[in-house]
Amino acid sequence: MPKQQTIEKWGTFEAEFSGPSDGNPFLDTPFDAVFAQHGREVRVPGFYDGDGVYRVRFMPDAEGEWTFRTRSTTAALDGKSGAFIASAPSKDNHGPVSVRNRYHFAHADGTPFFSFGTTCYAWTHQPLDMQAQTLETLKRTRFNKLRMGVFPKDYPYNVNEPLHPIFLAGKDGKEDFDRPNPEAFRHFENQVAALRDLGIEADIIIFHPYDRWGYCNMSAEQDFRYLAYLTARLAAYRNVWWSLANEYDFLLDSKPMTQWDRYFHIIEENDPYRHLKSIHNGDVNMNYDHRKPWVSHVCVQNWDVKRTFDWREEYGKPVVNDEPEYEGNIIQSWGNITAQELVHRFWITVMRGGYAGHGETYSHPQDLIWWAKGGELRGEAWKRIGFLLDVLQEDVKNGLTPIGKPGVFPWSRVSGASDGDVRYIYLGEHQPVVWSTGLPMDDGDYDIDIIDTWTMKITPGERIPTPQLHPTRHGSVIRGRKPDAAFGVKLPGRPFQAIRVRQKSRAN
Amino acid sequence: MPKQQTIEKWGTFEAEFSGPSDGNPFLDTPFDAVFAQHGREVRVPGFYDGDGVYRVRFMPDAEGEWTFRTRSTTAALDGKSGAFIASAPSKDNHGPVSVRNRYHFAHADGTPFFSFGTTCYAWTHQPLDMQAQTLETLKRTRFNKLRMGVFPKDYPYNVNEPLHPIFLAGKDGKEDFDRPNPEAFRHFENQVAALRDLGIEADIIIFHPYDRWGYCNMSAEQDFRYLAYLTARLAAYRNVWWSLANEYDFLLDSKPMTQWDRYFHIIEENDPYRHLKSIHNGDVNMNYDHRKPWVSHVCVQNWDVKRTFDWREEYGKPVVNDEPEYEGNIIQSWGNITAQELVHRFWITVMRGGYAGHGETYSHPQDLIWWAKGGELRGEAWKRIGFLLDVLQEDVKNGLTPIGKPGVFPWSRVSGASDGDVRYIYLGEHQPVVWSTGLPMDDGDYDIDIIDTWTMKITPGERIPTPQLHPTRHGSVIRGRKPDAAFGVKLPGRPFQAIRVRQKSRAN
Repeated sequence: MPKQQTIEKWGTFEAEFSGPSDGNPFLDTPFDAVFAQHGREVRVPGFYDGDGVYRVRFMPDAEGEWTFRTRSTTAALDGKSGAFIASAPSKDNHGPVSVRNRYHFAHADGTPFFSFGTTCYAWTHQPLDMQAQTLETLKRTRFNKLRMGVFPKDYPYNVNEPLHPIFLAGKDGKEDFDRPNPEAFRHFENQVAALRDLGIEADIIIFHPYDRWGYCNMSAEQDFRYLAYLTARLAAYRNVWWSLANEYDFLLDSKPMTQWDRYFHIIEENDPYRHLKSIHNGDVNMNYDHRKPWVSHVCVQNWDVKRTFDWREEYGKPVVNDEPEYEGNIIQSWGNITAQELVHRFWITVMRGGYAGHGETYSHPQDLIWWAKGGELRGEAWKRIGFLLDVLQEDVKNGLTPIGKPGVFPWSRVSGASDGDVRYIYLGEHQPVVWSTGLPMDDGDYDIDIIDTWTMKITPGERIPTPQLHPTRHGSVIRGRKPDAAFGVKLPGRPFQAIRVRQKSRAN
Repeated sequence: MPKQQTIEKWGTFEAEFSGPSDGNPFLDTPFDAVFAQHGREVRVPGFYDGDGVYRVRFMPDAEGEWTFRTRSTTAALDGKSGAFIASAPSKDNHGPVSVRNRYHFAHADGTPFFSFGTTCYAWTHQPLDMQAQTLETLKRTRFNKLRMGVFPKDYPYNVNEPLHPIFLAGKDGKEDFDRPNPEAFRHFENQVAALRDLGIEADIIIFHPYDRWGYCNMSAEQDFRYLAYLTARLAAYRNVWWSLANEYDFLLDSKPMTQWDRYFHIIEENDPYRHLKSIHNGDVNMNYDHRKPWVSHVCVQNWDVKRTFDWREEYGKPVVNDEPEYEGNIIQSWGNITAQELVHRFWITVMRGGYAGHGETYSHPQDLIWWAKGGELRGEAWKRIGFLLDVLQEDVKNGLTPIGKPGVFPWSRVSGASDGDVRYIYLGEHQPVVWSTGLPMDDGDYDIDIIDTWTMKITPGERIPTPQLHPTRHGSVIRGRKPDAAFGVKLPGRPFQAIRVRQKSRAN
């Protein structure tokens, strides 16, 4: 017996088998494996990787020895067994991300995950040197999630052919949607692994409408098989998130709603790790019903970020607004807001208990635009977005809970949130010289800072007696209105400021 | 018979009579007059002006001779008759403003009225030199409407006593809400006349919640009589608009909704000219039902100006958003947005077919703040708002109709409107380097200009072939999407730009 292979916990174990290569092995040769530890069994689908090679992958979520045994109606793939050791995870391996505290996320080891994503839809289909550049750029940013499509993209500024066709050619020379191209998937999963090694979650977009290769014309059965194949290959990567679509509603004429539901089910049947699953709308009025139980979190495209409150309440799940419009200057109105506006929308979203997504769409002579191709960032928002993440990571443990409720003054106008001993008030387009609402109601010992969200400067805030906000009389009613905070704070009278209040005697 | 008095059309004719001064003439001596021209009769209520003097006022809306005869149960005020001549209106007298083209306004002589108002709630209650300063400041602006309360204001920054109590002292030395103070009303109407002479509409706020004098504690009957008295005195001023309240909903606990309806009815009973009537909410979720027939136009307080579309559709009347938040830096979140943000909100509102209102709330060592006291403007928005009015007056004849519909891409994100031969697209926080959506569908002869809404510079726009906006494929559906305009236009790639397109062969 050879020495047992060792895989770190939440790493990817892979076993390889030889099997038939005639006919269509993608269709004809079902095969899975049951991984076991103590009395526990986990069923994992296998997949055909071309050239008579079959593989099964598994992500252990517990340390110690795991054994497995394959199952197939094909003798060569049935009853194969083996074992491996799952070791302690390495330092930067915190495990897959899942929902925690209803509206927030954390890694499996408990490390909070604040979703700060960006978007490079078709970066894995660009020339290899540009893909390397994308990874280098990402290293310099604080982004920890990347939206990326399996399929290439056909759209203005995106007319190049992909590196690899997604399916193999059939007898007629056209792509045969019943035969995935292992080389294309291998490349894709290598880039998922590269992101994993940078600590970046891969938000994998499974379908999208911007297609000239016929991928959108696949039959429902072909869609289902493609999805099962993708899941079998990729679920064992700990940094995978499943995004059913970019702009699913633009495909509703050919893929009805029940079919979208079924896609979710197929993932659940093939992903034993229950990676995060979401679905992204195009039209702002066409949100999927994110209350459905197979949806892990709310993914929206919406510029109206003060509504983040509402989406939390409507769906009762974490809110990730992946397209609050992008920084840029192209003609498309979803891709031409200022850097300052995008940073502003990030702060509003986060300070209402949600998460926002970044994209960059500056016109470029060779159409090298980050949002679809990756490469270089040319804008100004990404640094400030990274700064916001730094600010959160300094103090937030459980995720932010908004101060106030939808529509309740003044929280429809300004934004604030707290977690444990820290609270923030983000004033945005408001530029008061003093503020109090949302500050502590007790006269305790607090560190108060003023955060300039654009210049990224943090300066100590000056505490003052509570200013009078409102008359005690209000028509015939004497309200005896109580002050809304125990003290106030001075502000510079400029827009885009935030107030941070921390208890001095904090445990951490 | 003395020479007949001559009053210009839409001027104010006044007749004076002596009558009883004992008892309470405000309550005991009903008296009105019927003005007649040819077969037409118009009933006008009279009022007691103190010291045994009774008056009746009338605003003729047709030239030529008018006669009148008084009616009263008091012999001294009954059957008095007279006549006057209504002459042609003077150059700057365009008559009262009413609704035209469903969503817009015009003066009685047909001159379009674009409502560009500001707010000085209690300016008529400040020292006289400050009131003179307010009028001087207004002269330098382009504001053509002023929101102003009959009652003084009690609120942070507003603690001074009014120039005149609104009611006379009773036997107990307290104000007797059954005895209006003629001096207070005379002063108020003199200032309404001063605004009229500057071409400014007086948007008269009849009730508001910010009171320490007991005006909010008047009984329903006292409210009704106060309202009838106010109407009798002021309806004959052509520049009067009736604003039932500032923030009526904060008074609902003492003045129920049916009472607010009744206020409208009392105005209708006493104002034969049917001046504009509106009612202003406090809480953004508490709009009055502006569909009620006695409401002439929608008055809202709402910062969410991209919803202007919705209010037009919901109520089917002109929309005046009198508080899209104010430029300033005070602690109250309705009063501390940047000048740029307020100008932005004006453009969005106007380019969605509505009208916005200005206010300025900069903190001041002596609490001399424009929004309540008038005096001096200290901000930056008012000039740009005047510039927007100049732009409209150059071309708009009937009022602007928004391009697009609520929620229809891209008009939920950017704003555009047209009237006859002119159209505008306002891009706001969007900064594309080219644009086409909403430009003409024909390849005609157009003047194209780029308007920088902040620097107020207008430069010629460069016309280019229609850029490709969207793929023709969209998943399995080949849309054969038509271009959305016959041409595009280059833009500077900066925020807060507007595009203006005018037909070259315009009649005007």
